[in-house]
Amino acid sequence: MKYSGLVGELLEGAAAEIGDVIEVSRGDQAQTGILMPHHDFSADQIVTIKLYNGYNIGIRVDKKTKIKVVSKKESKDQKRQVLPRDANKKDVAVISTGGTIASYVDYRTGAVHPAISAEELVFSVPELLDLCNVRAKVLYSILSENMKVSHWQGLARAVADELNSGAVGVIVPHGTDTLGFTSAALSFMLRNLNGPVVCVGAQRSSDRPSSDAIINLLASTRLCVDSDLAEVVVLMHGETSDSYTLAHRGTKVRKMHSSRRDAFKSINAEPIARIEGSQITFTSEYEKRSRGPVEVKDKIDGRASMLHFYPGFEAEHFDMIAQNVKGVVVAGTGLGHVSEEILDSVRKAVDKGVHVYITTQCLYGSVNLNVYSTGRDMLASGAIPLGDMLPETAYVKLMWAMGQAEEHGDVKKLMLANIAGEFSTRRPV
Amino acid sequence: MKYSGLVGELLEGAAAEIGDVIEVSRGDQAQTGILMPHHDFSADQIVTIKLYNGYNIGIRVDKKTKIKVVSKKESKDQKRQVLPRDANKKDVAVISTGGTIASYVDYRTGAVHPAISAEELVFSVPELLDLCNVRAKVLYSILSENMKVSHWQGLARAVADELNSGAVGVIVPHGTDTLGFTSAALSFMLRNLNGPVVCVGAQRSSDRPSSDAIINLLASTRLCVDSDLAEVVVLMHGETSDSYTLAHRGTKVRKMHSSRRDAFKSINAEPIARIEGSQITFTSEYEKRSRGPVEVKDKIDGRASMLHFYPGFEAEHFDMIAQNVKGVVVAGTGLGHVSEEILDSVRKAVDKGVHVYITTQCLYGSVNLNVYSTGRDMLASGAIPLGDMLPETAYVKLMWAMGQAEEHGDVKKLMLANIAGEFSTRRPV
Repeated sequence: MKYSGLVGELLEGAAAEIGDVIEVSRGDQAQTGILMPHHDFSADQIVTIKLYNGYNIGIRVDKKTKIKVVSKKESKDQKRQVLPRDANKKDVAVISTGGTIASYVDYRTGAVHPAISAEELVFSVPELLDLCNVRAKVLYSILSENMKVSHWQGLARAVADELNSGAVGVIVPHGTDTLGFTSAALSFMLRNLNGPVVCVGAQRSSDRPSSDAIINLLASTRLCVDSDLAEVVVLMHGETSDSYTLAHRGTKVRKMHSSRRDAFKSINAEPIARIEGSQITFTSEYEKRSRGPVEVKDKIDGRASMLHFYPGFEAEHFDMIAQNVKGVVVAGTGLGHVSEEILDSVRKAVDKGVHVYITTQCLYGSVNLNVYSTGRDMLASGAIPLGDMLPETAYVKLMWAMGQAEEHGDVKKLMLANIAGEFSTRRPV
Repeated sequence: MKYSGLVGELLEGAAAEIGDVIEVSRGDQAQTGILMPHHDFSADQIVTIKLYNGYNIGIRVDKKTKIKVVSKKESKDQKRQVLPRDANKKDVAVISTGGTIASYVDYRTGAVHPAISAEELVFSVPELLDLCNVRAKVLYSILSENMKVSHWQGLARAVADELNSGAVGVIVPHGTDTLGFTSAALSFMLRNLNGPVVCVGAQRSSDRPSSDAIINLLASTRLCVDSDLAEVVVLMHGETSDSYTLAHRGTKVRKMHSSRRDAFKSINAEPIARIEGSQITFTSEYEKRSRGPVEVKDKIDGRASMLHFYPGFEAEHFDMIAQNVKGVVVAGTGLGHVSEEILDSVRKAVDKGVHVYITTQCLYGSVNLNVYSTGRDMLASGAIPLGDMLPETAYVKLMWAMGQAEEHGDVKKLMLANIAGEFSTRRPV
């Protein structure tokens, strides 16, 4: 039942044992699950893991494959903390992915590391259990700068599983660095939501007195239990003090400060809700709970890049990238401009069938390619403007749209449709 | 005296005549000047232009060279508008580069095109002449998305020439798209300033009733005439109405909205001054006029790139770019992070001698590579954090520092020195 050959070597190198949660990755693809024993009828290069959803899959490894332990299996001595359950309370799922909100400080080095147990996370905020029954799971335990496209897919499926099995809402503790990318991905992947999906982070780890983790988690829980919201949102502090939190639409939010607790801002939109104590105030229109079930549209095509234009940006740079992808999101200057040289490259790329979409690096405001001659030339080149959509949201959406549709025209139709509030209904001029 | 061969063909293609202001460009390099007659003793492939500073230079052309007319020479019939001169008033130079502030609307197409005469610009705001004598020049007539590194150099020299020949300040009308890049470049290139250099733009062209051009130009003039400021600043509307304007430090400013008149924001800094009517209120510390002369440090090495990290950013993308440049500015997530894969690429690039500097794509806040394990690994790789410096400013500064210093360590010393207020003195934690 032991693995041998290359799989054996990789597992040994990672000190992984049967029952541990491991991540098997190769390039941009990664799968996480419990390491299962080797089957005699499996080929030598196959490692078998049990996914979060209960399915076992076999993954073929090669020399580029990496394996690491996400969390060790529980030993028999280690008492598992069992979360209490009250039949009069609603179920809320907490699917932890890692990040500061689920992290601890290594006092030896002073550095912050991801924590490994969602139960620990919940027990650090016992007030949660006054509000609901918590179904806590650790799906990933990574810093969010290491999130990959495949993590979004696994997360979307896990969230849907919970909402389709009785949870009234799902809380996703997540590193703040790429929280806005993940919230955008979930916004597009999860359709017909029957409850809120609250992506929540913290800028200070929960062992620090100034931690924002507790208030953010409590407000997330209230949104799940006490509201009819059914969208993917990012919930974080609304100002630097602990007075209130804001829920931002998952497609319209961006981390706008490296360290402040109110780092997240709704861009070209109002926040969806403001939560102060037990009071939830909706501050813009929102989608209400469907009767379900939640649909998962998790096909995604990662062959896309996002390029920020700037003076001195070389046409060769654009050409090299465009040759290697199916789609490019350009974050142009001002209303969505690039230099004459890059315009030539855009034209060439579009002629070769590459999707080129235009956003603005100003972040605030809308692109408009009808005002200046450069913009009109951009339009003529076949590049497509994306209104007031954030560059980051556009990049995530393009990969999703290319995964959902085969035909060039169908991808464009999806890109220009308002799927998850990514275009403001009241567009800036 | 006529040009023949390839030069003749290029000039004919551009309909350029002796006396016209032309731009001769090849790839990322461009020179602008008055087309001079062909000399019999010059080689056939040489075109001669008179630069703004009065020098004639010969430029060798080849098949990749492009020539275009920036402005036609004045015909004898066309009466030159002569700006009045009052010996009791101070001289302010207006060096126009193009953009909306110096543009007109083509009513046939509705598109906005750059205008060609600084005199026209000045006469559209005759109130300027109440405040000072205006020395108006058209240096360039381009949309700012087409600004190149070499334009910054020519502009720096032209500005210094004016300040070193009696102008109390220089106003630089400029397109807003890359205004922040140009202001950063001038901030590093111009040392020992004896007066303000006011980069000014408009979000609405001056023929429109809502134009911000007039108020912005008047406030710029006041700053030149009535203050002891000696820094490069960007001056634009402070709010959407016409009530007041703000002067932002040239290294700390970014276009944060695609269309609003108050699009420019000081990032991680207070604006330097607020101008309301004739009232100038300084809102932060600033450099005062030196006794001159202004020094021009315009050597710049354009072999740099700026890369924004995001989930799905391919290591191959980073490697390709790093192979083709001497320096990379990374706009990382949060406190300055990238994924493990990109970290490997950073390490490889640094090992090969590439300068790698780290900023944050949050824009607000400072990078800090000491908090998380990813950051500590970044530091160990040899990447260098740049505090609260804007990614765009860091990119411009890196090209400038690589132009100023040969040795790796000397470039680093320049990068970490606070040359033009690019680091906030009161750094965010």
